[in-house]
Amino acid sequence: MKIGILGSGVVGQTVGKSLAQSGHDVVLGTRSPDKLDEKRGYGESLQNWLAEAGSHARVSSFQEAASHGDVIVNATAGTGSVEALHLGGSESIGDKILIDIANPLDFSKGMPPTLTVCNSDSLGERIQKEFPRARVVKTLNTVTARVMVSPTAVAGGGHDMFICGEDADARARVTEYLKDWFGWTSIVDLGGISAARGMEMYLPLWLLLWGALGTPMFNVRIVR
Amino acid sequence: MKIGILGSGVVGQTVGKSLAQSGHDVVLGTRSPDKLDEKRGYGESLQNWLAEAGSHARVSSFQEAASHGDVIVNATAGTGSVEALHLGGSESIGDKILIDIANPLDFSKGMPPTLTVCNSDSLGERIQKEFPRARVVKTLNTVTARVMVSPTAVAGGGHDMFICGEDADARARVTEYLKDWFGWTSIVDLGGISAARGMEMYLPLWLLLWGALGTPMFNVRIVR
Repeated sequence: MKIGILGSGVVGQTVGKSLAQSGHDVVLGTRSPDKLDEKRGYGESLQNWLAEAGSHARVSSFQEAASHGDVIVNATAGTGSVEALHLGGSESIGDKILIDIANPLDFSKGMPPTLTVCNSDSLGERIQKEFPRARVVKTLNTVTARVMVSPTAVAGGGHDMFICGEDADARARVTEYLKDWFGWTSIVDLGGISAARGMEMYLPLWLLLWGALGTPMFNVRIVR
Repeated sequence: MKIGILGSGVVGQTVGKSLAQSGHDVVLGTRSPDKLDEKRGYGESLQNWLAEAGSHARVSSFQEAASHGDVIVNATAGTGSVEALHLGGSESIGDKILIDIANPLDFSKGMPPTLTVCNSDSLGERIQKEFPRARVVKTLNTVTARVMVSPTAVAGGGHDMFICGEDADARARVTEYLKDWFGWTSIVDLGGISAARGMEMYLPLWLLLWGALGTPMFNVRIVR
């Protein structure tokens, strides 16, 4: 499948590498596609990334990633997501499935970080509002990048991922993608995009658990 | 142990009944202790509650509940907690352990509910600020009342409870109370009271999960 990933930090790199190595045709979009030797946040340089991701991966602009993908993944930092998606372009995004895996976390005021939008709104809703034709599906934002693409790396798998979005067909498709692409087995459908509030507002607890457990390699399993 | 519970809705009733039936000396504090035959929110009338809770339980004012308890439990609706605790009285509360199990949820604008305080503050922190001598410990707010007092009712137990508060000794004591009183086995210490933000901001996701699962009888198990 042709997949356009917006964002070249550790999240975009991890998801893009996993998909390219599985044979998907991946374009990783970044603001500065010419700076291949620069380390990207907690990720690596895109030069190194390309070497590891293999022949199915390319690096290009946000715009080219958005037009390339049959499915688009927003893996930018949440504070810059709307701007990055506008650089991708509403024409390129069109009515495609847009998988939003970002979190609107603001670390600029120190720990604990706050959310730049929450409670009566969410990043997922803002993206849907900015791109009303896009079929925005929020998912994967509740785990660290390595767990996103490798759920079995935590307790052998079987823990829970959440999903929401206005379009039920898009939710069903992305549910299948999560299974096929990464091996997720339990995906809880939370309904419309306003559920992105709950999924994003879980992040402060997730960060606290990272601190308490000493590792981001964890997830929650819903038990009843 | 002498326990004062502030709040006579379903949460206060459930916790108070469980403790009184275990032989603790419980005073349930309410704004209107004379109205014994009135149904209380999702709970029952206090007349019925007294009959079930047994001889170790009494109903009285917020003030008497606060002065009675060696330990105080805030089980009021979060939107009214600070006011109720002031009716309890800062002299009565003193430097006691004050277990805050409330959530600042506002259902008045319909679903999904919003939080009246979050992100850069929390109910737990506000209570600590209003009663600086009290040893506020936040816990139990992440599960439904019946699960609070009966964790084995969900998947036989073994799922996770969170705890936070400024005073490490108070956190350790309340951790023991949760084990002794209700049978909790896994209690994750999240540190100081600012962690109440994460614990309270989890509630929107919890409410969505209630909707998706069709029951509030669930919890999360942290897996790694």
